[in-house]
Amino acid sequence: MVEDTAKLNQSKVIHAFGGRQIIGSHASESTGTPMALSVFTPPGVQADTPVLIFLSGLTCTEQNVTTKGAFQRTAAELGLIIVCPDTSPRGDDVADDEGWDLGKGAGFYVDATEAPWQAHYQMWRYISEELPALIHAEISTGPLGITGHSMGGHGALVAGLKRPDLFKSVSAFAPICNPCDVAWGHKAFGAYLGAKRAAWAAYDATALLKSGATHPAPILIDQGLADGFLDAQLRPGSFAKAAENAGQGLTLRMHPGYDHSYYFVASFMADHLAHHARILRG
Amino acid sequence: MVEDTAKLNQSKVIHAFGGRQIIGSHASESTGTPMALSVFTPPGVQADTPVLIFLSGLTCTEQNVTTKGAFQRTAAELGLIIVCPDTSPRGDDVADDEGWDLGKGAGFYVDATEAPWQAHYQMWRYISEELPALIHAEISTGPLGITGHSMGGHGALVAGLKRPDLFKSVSAFAPICNPCDVAWGHKAFGAYLGAKRAAWAAYDATALLKSGATHPAPILIDQGLADGFLDAQLRPGSFAKAAENAGQGLTLRMHPGYDHSYYFVASFMADHLAHHARILRG
Repeated sequence: MVEDTAKLNQSKVIHAFGGRQIIGSHASESTGTPMALSVFTPPGVQADTPVLIFLSGLTCTEQNVTTKGAFQRTAAELGLIIVCPDTSPRGDDVADDEGWDLGKGAGFYVDATEAPWQAHYQMWRYISEELPALIHAEISTGPLGITGHSMGGHGALVAGLKRPDLFKSVSAFAPICNPCDVAWGHKAFGAYLGAKRAAWAAYDATALLKSGATHPAPILIDQGLADGFLDAQLRPGSFAKAAENAGQGLTLRMHPGYDHSYYFVASFMADHLAHHARILRG
Repeated sequence: MVEDTAKLNQSKVIHAFGGRQIIGSHASESTGTPMALSVFTPPGVQADTPVLIFLSGLTCTEQNVTTKGAFQRTAAELGLIIVCPDTSPRGDDVADDEGWDLGKGAGFYVDATEAPWQAHYQMWRYISEELPALIHAEISTGPLGITGHSMGGHGALVAGLKRPDLFKSVSAFAPICNPCDVAWGHKAFGAYLGAKRAAWAAYDATALLKSGATHPAPILIDQGLADGFLDAQLRPGSFAKAAENAGQGLTLRMHPGYDHSYYFVASFMADHLAHHARILRG
């Protein structure tokens, strides 16, 4: 399927680890913009090879994890397709903010309802409907898992809890676990969703657990203890407490010395891919 | 030793794969400038852990391979220290060229004899004397291996053939094998070493083999067949022919579809680290 894709424009197809690293883009109906993404296909890829979506964090594009996440070797060994979308719509006519934590590179995987953001910032619809449909139509009909880093870890946890029927396996690296309660979330949700905080809870993984949402598979979270954002922005403890109360299976690993960088992500990438492969190949 | 280094300024020490990724710099006597470098130390590093030096290619700094070369996981498994120097002196008072294939980012691992380059471009002395001395004094007293990519592959092959007593194991990714005969070499050697081509041969791996230099250990070279520089600039066939005539052990692997990028380097990195570990651990 990946040889001939009608919607996915494959601007580069690079041999890597016996498979192919595709850098591409497609015209998104959700955002009304071109959306960049990368796709790694392992050697021996089949029409129904399992697919793991990696959602990236603030300021990132699909390029950061694709070049620095070190997923290709293990994905090749385990037979996983890895799809990495961009973190927001892009383009001259897309609203932006002077800060790096709102606007371009900071879509927070929500459907904005407020001006000027609602015109293009429809990232929830993008990752939960359009991207899975594109994957199933042009990349693989196999089962989907979802993971991500920081803002992308927030997106992955929310996606898993809101759509366990679609995303069969869930994990996260240093996720923003409770955005309703931290500064990054206040700024982004306030802008995208407005002042009524009731709307925010639908995009908060800890709040979703508290409201009764769970995922049938255990969730894996890795977190560095030297991560400068840990207490102020990430708060995995809040998620863990809510998971325990909800009966949600969770492995939360706290790693002394590790920071928030891609060195941290790369260090534990192989474990996450094994987690997803185990569940998706179940 | 790495905990307390007098000459090596460790600006960042990042936990990665159970070891440490150090980003640092030191004042170089050879170049008369600060020289950036990265050092990865594996878990359980000892005072005599073997060290592999990776020389990077045109336009690169030590950052490219450190973030995109995917060496940390395997280096952690095999117990190798990886040292990645910059590709040239840097600074406002360092001579430069408008092209990306001469001057900053393009030191070619030679000691320049011509103005204005000779003031700072003393990269051969840097990699073959000062950097090994720094490593042995402050990082590890273990045996040294050397590898590199493209211009750095040229540097690694030359270093191995000129100093087999110092560099016990040698490999290269898509190296410039015969710079005296290609445009990159003509431009760089002409500028750094002057018009007398006799001086060039001392920095040409193929010419060194022809003049009788060999390395006691077999050399590993990987090369992509979709590499756009293969015929015009790299020419591994010339090196292979000279190696055969010289009785130099060589494994030259040609990989269909692979290009000149770090995806290619990363794809075969684990094999190179295993090659060096086997020889360095004897």
